[in-house]
This record gives sequence, structure tokens and C-alpha cells, in this order.
Amino acid sequence: MADAESGVVPAVEATADDIATMEIRGAATIADAAAAALATQADRSGAESPAAFRRQLRAAARTLYETRPTAVSLPNALRYVLRGMDGETVADLRASTIARAEAFRRDLERAQETLGEIGANRLRDGDVVMTHCHSTDALACIDVALESGKAIEAIVKETRPRKQGHITARQLREWGVPVTVIVDNAARRYLDRADHVLVGADSIAADGSVINKVGTSGLAVNARERGVPVMVAAQTIKLHPDTMTGHTVEIELRDEREVLSDEERATIVGGGDDEPVADDDGLTVDNPAFDVTPARYVDAIVTERGQFPPESIVTLMRELFGETTDEPWTA
Amino acid sequence: MADAESGVVPAVEATADDIATMEIRGAATIADAAAAALATQADRSGAESPAAFRRQLRAAARTLYETRPTAVSLPNALRYVLRGMDGETVADLRASTIARAEAFRRDLERAQETLGEIGANRLRDGDVVMTHCHSTDALACIDVALESGKAIEAIVKETRPRKQGHITARQLREWGVPVTVIVDNAARRYLDRADHVLVGADSIAADGSVINKVGTSGLAVNARERGVPVMVAAQTIKLHPDTMTGHTVEIELRDEREVLSDEERATIVGGGDDEPVADDDGLTVDNPAFDVTPARYVDAIVTERGQFPPESIVTLMRELFGETTDEPWTA
Amino acid sequence: MADAESGVVPAVEATADDIATMEIRGAATIADAAAAALATQADRSGAESPAAFRRQLRAAARTLYETRPTAVSLPNALRYVLRGMDGETVADLRASTIARAEAFRRDLERAQETLGEIGANRLRDGDVVMTHCHSTDALACIDVALESGKAIEAIVKETRPRKQGHITARQLREWGVPVTVIVDNAARRYLDRADHVLVGADSIAADGSVINKVGTSGLAVNARERGVPVMVAAQTIKLHPDTMTGHTVEIELRDEREVLSDEERATIVGGGDDEPVADDDGLTVDNPAFDVTPARYVDAIVTERGQFPPESIVTLMRELFGETTDEPWTA
Amino acid sequence: MADAESGVVPAVEATADDIATMEIRGAATIADAAAAALATQADRSGAESPAAFRRQLRAAARTLYETRPTAVSLPNALRYVLRGMDGETVADLRASTIARAEAFRRDLERAQETLGEIGANRLRDGDVVMTHCHSTDALACIDVALESGKAIEAIVKETRPRKQGHITARQLREWGVPVTVIVDNAARRYLDRADHVLVGADSIAADGSVINKVGTSGLAVNARERGVPVMVAAQTIKLHPDTMTGHTVEIELRDEREVLSDEERATIVGGGDDEPVADDDGLTVDNPAFDVTPARYVDAIVTERGQFPPESIVTLMRELFGETTDEPWTA
Amino acid sequence: MADAESGVVPAVEATADDIATMEIRGAATIADAAAAALATQADRSGAESPAAFRRQLRAAARTLYETRPTAVSLPNALRYVLRGMDGETVADLRASTIARAEAFRRDLERAQETLGEIGANRLRDGDVVMTHCHSTDALACIDVALESGKAIEAIVKETRPRKQGHITARQLREWGVPVTVIVDNAARRYLDRADHVLVGADSIAADGSVINKVGTSGLAVNARERGVPVMVAAQTIKLHPDTMTGHTVEIELRDEREVLSDEERATIVGGGDDEPVADDDGLTVDNPAFDVTPARYVDAIVTERGQFPPESIVTLMRELFGETTDEPWTA
Amino acid sequence: MADAESGVVPAVEATADDIATMEIRGAATIADAAAAALATQADRSGAESPAAFRRQLRAAARTLYETRPTAVSLPNALRYVLRGMDGETVADLRASTIARAEAFRRDLERAQETLGEIGANRLRDGDVVMTHCHSTDALACIDVALESGKAIEAIVKETRPRKQGHITARQLREWGVPVTVIVDNAARRYLDRADHVLVGADSIAADGSVINKVGTSGLAVNARERGVPVMVAAQTIKLHPDTMTGHTVEIELRDEREVLSDEERATIVGGGDDEPVADDDGLTVDNPAFDVTPARYVDAIVTERGQFPPESIVTLMRELFGETTDEPWTA
Repeated sequence: MADAESGVVPAVEATADDIATMEIRGAATIADAAAAALATQADRSGAESPAAFRRQLRAAARTLYETRPTAVSLPNALRYVLRGMDGETVADLRASTIARAEAFRRDLERAQETLGEIGANRLRDGDVVMTHCHSTDALACIDVALESGKAIEAIVKETRPRKQGHITARQLREWGVPVTVIVDNAARRYLDRADHVLVGADSIAADGSVINKVGTSGLAVNARERGVPVMVAAQTIKLHPDTMTGHTVEIELRDEREVLSDEERATIVGGGDDEPVADDDGLTVDNPAFDVTPARYVDAIVTERGQFPPESIVTLMRELFGETTDEPWTA
Repeated sequence: MADAESGVVPAVEATADDIATMEIRGAATIADAAAAALATQADRSGAESPAAFRRQLRAAARTLYETRPTAVSLPNALRYVLRGMDGETVADLRASTIARAEAFRRDLERAQETLGEIGANRLRDGDVVMTHCHSTDALACIDVALESGKAIEAIVKETRPRKQGHITARQLREWGVPVTVIVDNAARRYLDRADHVLVGADSIAADGSVINKVGTSGLAVNARERGVPVMVAAQTIKLHPDTMTGHTVEIELRDEREVLSDEERATIVGGGDDEPVADDDGLTVDNPAFDVTPARYVDAIVTERGQFPPESIVTLMRELFGETTDEPWTA
Repeated sequence: MADAESGVVPAVEATADDIATMEIRGAATIADAAAAALATQADRSGAESPAAFRRQLRAAARTLYETRPTAVSLPNALRYVLRGMDGETVADLRASTIARAEAFRRDLERAQETLGEIGANRLRDGDVVMTHCHSTDALACIDVALESGKAIEAIVKETRPRKQGHITARQLREWGVPVTVIVDNAARRYLDRADHVLVGADSIAADGSVINKVGTSGLAVNARERGVPVMVAAQTIKLHPDTMTGHTVEIELRDEREVLSDEERATIVGGGDDEPVADDDGLTVDNPAFDVTPARYVDAIVTERGQFPPESIVTLMRELFGETTDEPWTA
Repeated sequence: MADAESGVVPAVEATADDIATMEIRGAATIADAAAAALATQADRSGAESPAAFRRQLRAAARTLYETRPTAVSLPNALRYVLRGMDGETVADLRASTIARAEAFRRDLERAQETLGEIGANRLRDGDVVMTHCHSTDALACIDVALESGKAIEAIVKETRPRKQGHITARQLREWGVPVTVIVDNAARRYLDRADHVLVGADSIAADGSVINKVGTSGLAVNARERGVPVMVAAQTIKLHPDTMTGHTVEIELRDEREVLSDEERATIVGGGDDEPVADDDGLTVDNPAFDVTPARYVDAIVTERGQFPPESIVTLMRELFGETTDEPWTA
Repeated sequence: MADAESGVVPAVEATADDIATMEIRGAATIADAAAAALATQADRSGAESPAAFRRQLRAAARTLYETRPTAVSLPNALRYVLRGMDGETVADLRASTIARAEAFRRDLERAQETLGEIGANRLRDGDVVMTHCHSTDALACIDVALESGKAIEAIVKETRPRKQGHITARQLREWGVPVTVIVDNAARRYLDRADHVLVGADSIAADGSVINKVGTSGLAVNARERGVPVMVAAQTIKLHPDTMTGHTVEIELRDEREVLSDEERATIVGGGDDEPVADDDGLTVDNPAFDVTPARYVDAIVTERGQFPPESIVTLMRELFGETTDEPWTA
Repeated sequence: MADAESGVVPAVEATADDIATMEIRGAATIADAAAAALATQADRSGAESPAAFRRQLRAAARTLYETRPTAVSLPNALRYVLRGMDGETVADLRASTIARAEAFRRDLERAQETLGEIGANRLRDGDVVMTHCHSTDALACIDVALESGKAIEAIVKETRPRKQGHITARQLREWGVPVTVIVDNAARRYLDRADHVLVGADSIAADGSVINKVGTSGLAVNARERGVPVMVAAQTIKLHPDTMTGHTVEIELRDEREVLSDEERATIVGGGDDEPVADDDGLTVDNPAFDVTPARYVDAIVTERGQFPPESIVTLMRELFGETTDEPWTA
């Protein structure tokens, strides 16, 4: 039974709880669940007027949105579905909303594969690809290229501090791709052997800049200097709608122990065994999760909707998620 | 008693042995020992003619040189001393050679401090310095700056694979310098806060390029892109005389286990506990010790003879070590 | 009573007169008046057929357009409103035209504030902004940032020849912003302290280049070299529709006495007190009002419709003002 | 009488044959014929249901497409027309398809002239234009500029191996344009005298890169270095729809004798008169027809739909030819 | 009669006083007087031993040096002369010192003319030169070019805040050179018409960077971007010997009223007539006299000893003024 | 018998005649003959005083110099020999001059081989070298590399208009080097496969710029953009001494028929068979022999004295040929 005042149905509340508690996590999974919840809301809505129906849908979207307001795929799902809510009657509104949610989920399910097909088209037989961190979108491009019979080799940066390059290396080895692992510091030296730099994205901003695992921007600058094109693989749920209104993406600072273990720290600050290390020991460890690569160092962003120069991605954002600076669930 | 044929005295042989067995190691220590050995040779030479004296000195130099033909400071010491052997009589030759060897050793002893004074002059009160790897020449510049009362802060790249940044951080903390440790991947992000990139050098080539710990070149390219000047601190014994004749510096590949432990490798290639990993498992680990930074990304090379644009360093090389393409101990 | 032949109502003629005599001036004021005039034309049109109505509206637009054919906001207003004229009956055409004109005016009224909110999102607490000339759009971004509690400092270029930087400095001081005034020549030196270059625009071309107060392009090139992002604040009425068809923007040459007073000129050409200075004294003074900054030196254009990479602005122009190369009032 | 199964009318088959046999050739001619054929198919279709009509049209398109699947203008024409097929009844479908085909052909007929008008607007009186190869689209810009009374001079690169620059020079001389012919190697030296580089395009990719006669990319890099803007003139039928899905454009390798005559080859490999030259004589001659100029070296692409920064061209491609990654004749 | 203890003769003290009181001023005049004083000291020295003679000369140099330790030409003159003091007897020392001082003064007298001849060789008939500030060394190049019959035109930047461009314009007009005066902001726009940027230097550093009137570095960056070569005209007395040891050149901050008159300031901070403006009114005016142009933006430095790439100037500094990091008058 | 007045011996006159009539030609041959002639003059001089001897030598040098004042190797040979003329007696002057001339000739004879050894050191086993035009100095580097067992491949630009690339290709094929011939327009496309660009030089200027076959500068700019190092092989007799004093190197314009045959011209200007082509037919053909590559696009200049960054070459010029701006034979 729906909430008396807002009309939001319990299934939406349940999904919101699961997102809030991170029961539901991962960009695609969250987006899918949010779209499904809106479809359920539309389906089960008891609204008697179009206005009430719309109000309920907005309330449901707001409920979902507020669980994790910084997740980039969540507002995208909500925006996409609400933009498809269209009609003069409750029945029409219901049908259009459900259809839009289903379309979103269907596209989402195929997105990585479609993206992989598009990205694979940029890879030629015999190409050497340098990777940074681990991205299933990026790997999908290699996967399709391999399936279509192209020989691909990889130079895998280990990607300190968490060495996600090892996950990438493992996946590529399973596919039989010859892999060379290097430390991040060796990247410029090995760019001479690479035909592409291929990375994923945490999110993509309206000004075309790419927010991705820290180290991406330094790699991209070196790739340009060495004449190697940079290709970013990212589903459209990574397009950050807030950035259309100038918002910058907050860069999370992660636990410093990923960078420096307690033992390493003790060695540096020189506290003896028995002396406790002072609280302010003059040693700061900064561990930013991401950095920002300006559009001018990226050659192409590959999405499931096609490939784009980064400077054009804002057009795709507007097309998919609307222009309005107000959040559609606020009005 | 000197070797009957060559006239090389036993003390030279002893020094050669110590260099060969790495009893004597480190660029400055080797150079000092080699110059001392030539002085001893000059002092104890039983040569009766100027020609014999010269022949003996060349033989002694050759003996020393052949212990580690790729060490850059060793031929520099030998070349420098032999270039000072001058005179018409054995007595003059002896005196000039000994004086030259002593001058070399005296300069060498003061070199790091002098270099530090020069480098410190480039640092202003309140400057933030980004470091890569660990270099006592680079640290000497900060040391003098601190002693002259300038406040300096440091952003220390950890410098995978061997994390020599920790040694740098420890030294700087001992001096009371506020230190921020970052992973190498975070360098571009933190360049916005840096006033200088300050690194040492393994060796410097005649075309002005700097051979240093892998990662230096990528950092330098990013520093240029971010508008941060790059300063290389290197004593003149690091100037690579072979490069005047076009030789490129061989980049040593180090043990891959510095990059990937056996456990990490096993995880990637997926061998089970009982199955031995195949010899050729498709996974290569490349661990180059150094890379080459082109002259155009370096703003100044600071030596104990003054600071130089990298494009001018060849002039200093010729002045100190001579032009000739033949090794002086060969003729 | 409308003009017998054209059907253009007197209120439109009056507005046209006021624009022509510069009674009505300023980009936003002109645009607002033009849209209002078209609404009045629609409201009072005595047309009896849809075709006649359309013809009258085009005539009214043409009348307005011809008053100042080089003003960029005027054709934009006309194009925008005419593109909304839609329907099968005179009543529908009237209603849609009036609604469109009202929407335009409503958007226009809020445009600077909305733009300011978007631009403010790019500024972080503690940022230092370098300004050139005086732009209320640019200042709106700082205004909103201050209101949201961010501390902002400004480096204000004086902007010869007319020193509009003084107006900017005065406004910023009224808002309590710490201001450092510098001559234009000092800009590169002070870019090291700036986090943003923030300028307005006289107009923006379809190829993404920005026409703004002379000196903008030189500043932008230096900002790129120093790693400082360049942000252009400009309402969409500044998008120059003629440039979609390749037209270049004429750069006005202003009175040379803004650059060189008569006394200064006399000193240079050296005419004595009694001798009249020759007509052609070999001394030219060029005083271009604007220059053109290529898209590649601009990081983002902030409009009331969101922020855009300059390379995408043509898409927004087409969306708002239509593609057609023919002026809509001509057909 | 239409094909019994597919319903494709004989006139379509005839056009397909003419394209296959290159009776019909040239980008514009092919596009025009294909659109005409689809109009004929729509006109003569005996389909009794909308579904059948659509099926027939797709079959006709497929028939045409398969004649030259790598020709860029052919799929564009087919995509454009099929995208306009709209309606609930056979009559509506027929009418809309025919109207769309006619619109396409009408636009195509005027395209070069319109493009010329737009491109001419970028040229100022007295400008010097450097050309590469021969392009009627590029020449159309000069033609209109001349007609509007502007004085234009040209520096014409001869464009080895086929020296199409001679054709360009001849056309320009007929129009009275002062022409300086240079070898391709002299281009950088003469860029100091040029106000524009003006070239055509073989095709344009979704990432904004321009595929054109080999030598274009090297010229564009030099033009950027010399500060000369690069303008590409290309009708929209040159926009390569496959590239939206990441496909790269295959670069044709042409007959090596265009580069090296048999006599020249014999001189190089040194075979005497009587000795036959070995099959593998160690001498390869590569004669690529085109190369790829990255978007960042192109200032503007001039089409009949207006001028665009290369990074925005993908938006125009999507607008004209649709997003779908599937070919519309396949579904 | 010489000072009893130091042996410094009264004429040296007198010259020192005149330099200290700025009776003697200007880089060349100071250098000339200092060399003359050392010659006088050598001539009149009552030293009875070579050691005493050397000691006296050093004392004289020290006396002169301490009058204006930051003047760049003064230590250069002293270093140059002292480096020529050579001999085993007082007579030889005296003769060599006097000869060296005379050589220095003779070279100095001809330096600007010789420099002008060399610089003029870089200018071709018909060239357009853009100037910044006023430099007699730079003008000497134009003067010789004109004398040799070359037609030269000039674009003169006014050079705020002190508008020394007017002095340049006046001199050029006297020589009959067609002059176009522009504000500094217009420089990038007019670089398209310029064949050279020609500036002087306040001093030149060992790393090849050029310290010159503020605005030079921004102009040089734009000139590189526009493809215009930058030529610096500077006599060798401008080579800054302290920079060989890493010292950076202090940039003088001049009176803020050169930038902002009291009236202009009052208008900005808004104090009414009767209210005194608060001491800290939040308005800072920064008026740096010079800025630093990195070597990489300068194409050639023209001296009276020939032209040099900026990266080689350190070699000339070492040749003329010695390497030693100690001041020769200190030891 | 020597000329009565000047004392110049007949053998010198004979050599001068042979150079003037181009009996003696080629940079190395001219230099060798000039040095030999000065040795002969010294040997046969009847001068009775050192002053007379010096005067005669200068007269001989002047006689030789005036035969071809623009040949770069001729003044170099004369300068080098005259700089070695040293002594207090005629006998000493004679001996030193002859020794110096012989040293010059001996070095010259070995120069290309020594240069080749140095250049070969920059090439690694398996490298691919792109060449422009034909240079025996450049080929010497490949020759030595091949002899030392390195595998080298070559991409040979044909080098219009005279296609000297064919000569290069032929030589490389004789040595068994795999060769790919391309048109000059294809260079950027093939730079992706090249490890080096290797060219010779017509002459090298004091500012480090390289004057070489037209097309070199455009290639070098592209090589930098593609990350390929550029290596210039040039004996020191190619260092242009006049450029030390700012002189620019005149670029010869060659016969336009190398670019355009009479038939090709007729086709372009369209004159019919019987109508003579007008003198001024509006068609200019420019055929510059050389162009100028700025120092910043060259990575190393390889000479027989070692390799140098181009910015340091002026130091070598001064060392070998002296600083003086006056020609030594004039004084």
C-alpha cells in the first residue's frame, strides 16, 4: 500500500533502502533497480488524476535519488524515465512511463556489449593496447575485437595504490591476450610500443573532461606527447548530468593506508618502538581516488550510442537526460 | 712492485679489484678511488722516460677502466686526471698528474655541498618541491635552502617499484620539512601545488637528455604541461662521456619480482596450487630501472660547476673530459 | 493602425525607431524589446489568413532587424520568436507566437542569474580568478559564488585602452572581494597565482571562437601555457547566428585617441608648437575593440542553458535559432 | 514488374547495376541516383500493407547498398530517405518517402553552391589560400568569394603522386586567380604567406577526423605550427556513418607505378638489361591514397548545412542519418 | 694617496662614491667607470710585491662592487678586468691589468654598434618588427638595417604602465620608420603582420631566460604560438653572473601610482570626498618592473660577440666572466 | 714565382682558378684544396719578416675566399688554418701553418667515417630510419651501423622535385637494406613506423637552425608531433660562420622546370598550340632549394667532433673558426 501522503508504493521504498544500504551497488545495477522501481510505481499507482500521477512519480524519484545523491548513474536513470512520462490521461502516463523504464533497462542490459562492438571497431588486428586500472567497459572492447579474430596485445599498468591492473591482467590472460605488466612509472617508456591507450571512466563531465582512476590524466598527457590516441570506454550512465550546470565532480580521498602501511609510516616518521607517533607528525598521505583528464587529451569516448569526440558529449547528455538545471523530481 | 711489463703498481691493481668486487661502490666513491689510484701510480712509477711514464699511466687507467666499463663516474675520473698529465720530464709529469688527481678529489669532496648551494639559490622561501625517487644531490639543494632559513614543503612521489620516495620522505622529515606522500599516479593532480620538480640523475647525455629513475620522463612531460619548472641536480661525474660519440645509455632491466611477487603472478596467470605455472605463461613483467627525459622538458641542470640549460651540458663535458672519441687509455 | 501594405503595427515601428536611435541599447534590452514588439504584432495583427499573419510577422521582424543589422542579440530574439510561430489557424499562430515571445523574455530576464549559478559551480572556495575587461555575465558567476559562502579573490587586469578593469575592481570591492589590480602586461606573471581566467564575450561564433575585448586571446594563450583554465560567461543572446554560415565577425576599430592623446601624438611625431602636424605623419594608431580567441584555448562557455565546450556551441545555436542560412524574415 | 518476393521494382535493380558497374560514379551522382531509385520504388510499389511497403523499401535500399558497401555517399542517401518514411497508411508512407527523396535530391543539387557561399564568407578580400589536391567543394568557396568581388591568391601544392594540383591551378587560372605552384615539400616555407589552408575531404569520421588525399595531415600539422587556420570544405554526403560505430576508414593503397615508374625502379634495384629483377627485390613502394587528419588540427568544416568545428560534426551526422548502429535496410 | 691599509687609491673611492650616489648611472656608464677605476688602481698602486698588488686590486674591486651589489654590469666589469690580471712581477701585473681594462672599455664603446650590425643581419628588406618597451640595443639593430638600405616597419606596443613605447615610436619616426602604435592588449592580433618580435633585456640568466620589461614573456609566448621569431638584443654586460650559481633575479616592484592614480584608486574603493580611505582597503596594486621569459620562447640573443641561442649563453658568460662561484674580490 | 706585390704564390692562384671555374667542387673537396693551397703558400713564401709572412698568408686566403664567397666550407677551411698560424719567427709561422693545414686535411679525410661511427651509435639493431633527400653524411651513419651488424630498415621519401630519394634508395639497396619508397606527402602517415628521421644538412647556422633540402622543416615538425627524434648528420665544414654575426642564409631559387615542365605549364595556363603563352600568365612557379628547420625541432646534430644539441653548435663554431666578426683575411 502506497504512502498515504506521497503515494509512493512500498516497492520503491524497499529499493531505496537497498540502494542506501548498498545492498544494491554498482553503477549499472543501481540504474537498473531505479528504473524498475519507477515502473513499479507507475504500474501500482493509485493516482486518479494525471497531476497526481505525475506528483507521485516525482516523489518516488526523489525518494530514490536521496539515497545516494552523488551516484552518477542513479539520477541518470530517474531523469531518463521521467522524461518519457507523457500523455493526457493516467492510463497514457502509466503506459508511457513503464515503456520508457523498460526501454532504459533493455538498453542498459545490452549497453556494454554494444559499446564493446563499437570500441572493437577502433582496434586493428595486431594492435597493442595500454590499459590503466580495471574497467569492464574497456575490456568489452578488447573482448569483441578478440572474438572477431583480431590479435591484440596489452601493456597493463599495475595502477597503484590498489593494483587493479592485476585484475585486468588476469582477465586478459584468461582470454589468451599476451600481457606485459609494468609499474605506472614506466608508462611513457612503453607508450612507444602502444597503438592505443584504452581506459574506462568513473564519470564524464559536460565540458568533455573524463573523471577516472587517478593517473589517467598524466597518462593521457604523455600519450598525446608520444602520438598515441586515447580512447575512453564508458556507458552513457556515466555521463554526469550535474556537470551540465557547472558542478565539478568531487574527488574522493581514500584511506591513506592504501598508500602507506602503518609500518612504512613508522619508518618514515622515525618513531621508536616505544614512543607513540605524534598525532601531527608532519607527514601527510594524500590518496585521491580519481583525477580529471581535460577533453583535449582524449581522442574518442566510446559509448553504446556510438563514439564521440569528448567535446560533443554534452549534446548526448542533453538528448538523453534533458537540459533543465532543476532536478525533475524537485518541481 | 709494479707489474714488470705494464709498470702498473700493485696499489692500482688492488683498487681495481675492489671496484670489480664492488667493495668500492657508489659513483663518487669509485671516482675518488680511481683518481687516488692514478696519483699513486704517478707517485710510485719507476718509469725512466716521459714516454714510459705516460704508457704506465695509460695502462693503470685501462686496468681501472676495465673493471666496470659501464660505470659513468669511473671513466670521468680517469679522463679528468689523464688530461692534466703534462710536462716534458718524468718529474713534471708526475707532479702534474698528482696535482690533477688531488684537484679532482678535492672538487669531488666539495661537489655535493657546492651543488646544494647552487640549487638552493633556485628555491624561494615558501616553495613546494615535488620529488621523484631518492637523490642525495637533489636533497642537498633542499638542505642548503633550509639552512639559509627558507621554508620548503615537499610532495614526495613514492616511486614504485622500490618506493625510494620513502627514503626521501624520511630524510625530509628529519629536517622538519612538511611532507605529503602520494602514489606516482597522483603526480599530475598535485603538480598544481608544486613550484618545482626536483630530481637527481643516474647520468646525463651529450644531447642534454637525462637518464634517471623510471618515471622521471613522464613526470617532466606533465610538469611542462602544468607550467612547473623541472630542475635536475647532478654532479659532473654523472655526465656520460660515451654519449658525446653518440652512444645511447643502456637501460638496465631489473628483477621482475620488484614489480610482481610470485603470489601476485600466480593469481594473474591462474595456476592452481598443485599445477606448476608454465614457463611461457603469456605474462611478461618489464622492470626498466631508468628512462630518458629529453632536454626540452628540463629547465636547468644544477651541477657543482654552476647551473646549465641541458642543451649546454655538452660544452661542460668537453671542457672537463675532453673531446676525443678515443678512450685516452687506449692510445 | 497597422501599415496598410505590410500590416506592421505602429508599436513595432516605434520600437524599431528606438533601437535605431539607440534609445534602446544593450544586448539584453534590445533583445527584450524586439521580442515584445513581435508579441504586440501578433496580438494586434488584423490578418485574416494564416499566410497573411505569417507575412506580417516576417515584415515586422524585418523592420526590427534592419535597424541594427550587426547587433548580435537582435536577430537572435527575432529568430527565436519566429521559430515558435506554429499552428493552422490565425488564432493558433497568434497564441503560439505570443507564448514564444513571452518565454523568450522570461528566460532572458532570468538568464544572467541562471548563468551566474552555473558559473559559480565551477568556482571553489578559496579560488583566485583573473579577469579581463568588465562583464556583468562574468561578475554574476562570482556574485553567486560569494552568496553561497565561497571565498573568492580577484586579479583584475586594467584592460587598456579604456581601463574597464576599474569598473570590475569597483564592483568586486563593493562585494568585499580582495582585489589585486595589475597592468595587462603583468598577466602572465600573475597567472601562476590564478585558478581561473574568467571573461565575458561580445559574441561567440559557430566555430567556437570567442569575440571579446581585445587582449582576451593573448591572455587565453598564456593561460593555456600556464595551465590555468579559461571560462567564458555569455548568455545565449551572444551566440552569433551569422557565423553558422561562415561569416566572420567584423572587428570595430575605435577612436585612436583612446590609445594616444593629441599631446602624446605630438610628442612622438615631434611637431613643434607652431608647425602643424602633417596629415600623413607616418604614425598610425590602431585601436581594435575586440579580438578572436580560437576555441582550442577556451575550456568552457557558461550560458544560462548550461556549460559547453566551445566546440559544441554550434549545436546550441542551431537548437535555439535554427539552421537555415536564409534570414527567416526574408522568405 | 517488381520482383515477386522482394517487391523491388526493376528500376531499382537497373540503378543498382549502373552503380555496380560504375556507370554511375562520383559521390554526388551515386547519392542522387540512389535517392531517385527509392522514390521510384515508393511510387511504383504494389505493397498493400504498410508493413509490406516498409519491407519493400528496405529491400530496395539493401539492393542498392550492396553494390558498393564502402562508398560513403550511398548509405547516406539511403539512410536519409528511409528516415523520412513516415505514416500509418501506404499512401502516407509513399508520399512521405517520395517527398523525402526529392528533398534530398534538391538539397544535393544546391549543396555545393550553398557550401561555396558559406565557405566564401570565411575568406576576406586579399587573402592567400594554400590548396592541396583538387576539390570542387573547396574551389566552390573560392568561386563565390571571387564572384562577390574579393581578390584571392592561391598557393597550389602540386600533390604528388598524381599532381592533381595542376587541375586546381588550371581552374584557378581560368578564373583569373594569381597562382603560385610549389612542390609539396615547400609547403611549410610558403605557409608564412598563406591566410588559409583550404582542402576538401574524401570522408569525415564521427570523431571529427578528416580523411583526405595523402599529405593533408602533414600539411595541417604544419599549418597549426605556423598559425594558419585549416578549413575543410565537404558536403554532408561525405560524413561517414559507419564511423559513428567506431569503424575506421580503410585507406586504399594505389598502384605503385604512380610513385615509381618501371624505369625508376630498375635504376634503384640495379638489375641490368638482361637480368630479370627478382620478385622480392627488397624494394617496397607504398602508395596510400589518403591519410587521416585528427580533429584538433582542423579549424572548421564547411558544409552546405553551415560550418562546424570538427568535434561537432557527429551531431550533424546523427541528425541527418540517425543514430542506430544497425543499418536501416537490415532490420 | 692610497688608503694605508687596503692600498685602494682615492680615485677608486671617488668612482665608488659616484656610483653609490648614482652620479654615475646606466649599465654601460657604470661598467666603463669601474673598469677605468681598476686601471687607475693598477697604474697608481704602490704595491711592492705581486701578492700585495693582487690584494690591492681585489680590495679596489670590492670597494666598487659594494656600491651597488645588484647592478648587473658592475660585477661583470670587475670580473672581466680581474680575470686579465696576469704575471709574475708587479710590472707585469700592472701592465696586464691596465691592458685588460682598456680592452674592456674599448669593446664596451663599440658594443652597441657591433651588436646593431649583427642584429641588422637578421632583418630583411621589408620586414615588420614588433617592439616592446624601449631598448637602445634593440633600436641599434633597426638603425643599422635602415642605414644599409633596408625598409623596415614597426608595430610599437605602448608598454604600460610607463608607456616607454612612445620613446621608441619617437625614435623610429625620427628615422622615418612607418610606425603603428597599439595597446599591449592588441599584440596577438597584430603578430600576424609581424616578421620579428625585437626586444632588449634588463639582464639574462645562465639558464637562458631573459629578464626584461614586464609583458615580454606574455608577448614571447604569443609570438611562438603565432610563428613569429623572438630576437633579444643585449650587450654582454647584461649577462647576469650570479645566475650561474642558481641565483634568481629579484623582480623590483615599482610605485603603484604608475598603475593607478590616487583618483582612480579613490573611485574604485569608493571613499567619499571627506572620508579618508582606510589603510587596508582590500585593494592591492602590484607593479612588477620585469618578468622572466623562459629560454624556449626566445629564438636568438644578439650580443656584440655574435648571436646565440639562449641555451648557449651560459657558455659565453663563463668565457667572459669566469666560472668561479666565489666573487673574485672576496678571496 | 709569387706575385710581386702580394707575395701570393702561383699555386694558390691556380687553386683559386679551379675553384672559381668549378673544376674543384663539392664542400669537402673545396675545403681540402683551400687548406692545401695555404700550406703551399706557407711552404713557398719568400717573406723575410713575420709581418710579411702573415700578410702574404692573408692575401692568399683572400684570393681563395673571393672565388666563391657564399660557399660555406671554403671560409671554414681558411679560418681554421689561419687560426693556427702562430710563432715569433718566419720559420715558426711556416711550420705552424703547414701543420695546421695538414691537421685540417687529415681530419677532413676521416671526418665522414668518424661522423658515421658516432651517428651509428644512435641507431639500434632493428631500427627503422626515415630519410629525406640524399646525404652521404647521413648514409655514413647507416653504413657503420650495418657494418657493426645492426639490422636497419629505411623509409625513403622520394624528395621532389629532383627525387634524390632514388639515389638514397639505390645506395641502401646495394647495402641490402630493406627500403620502402614513399611520396613526400605520405611522410606523416609513415612516421608511425619510424624510429628516427635522419637527414644531412646544406649548412648549419649559429642559432642552431638547419638549412637543408626543402621539405626538411615540414618533416621535422611532423616528426616532433609523432614523437620521432630528428638526427642531422653534418660535418663541421657545414657550420656557417657568417651566421655567428646574424647573417641569414640565402635560399637559392632553382629552375622552375624542375617543378613544372613546359607541357605541364601549357596545360595549366591553357594556351592553345599556336598562341604563344603570354609572358605574364599569372602562373608563378617557386622552386626553393632549401628550407630552414628551427633548432627546437632537431634532437641532435652529429658531426665528426661528436654529437651536439643544435642549441650548442655555436660553441663548436666559435672553437673551430673563431669568434671574430671580421674575416681574418681582411685585417
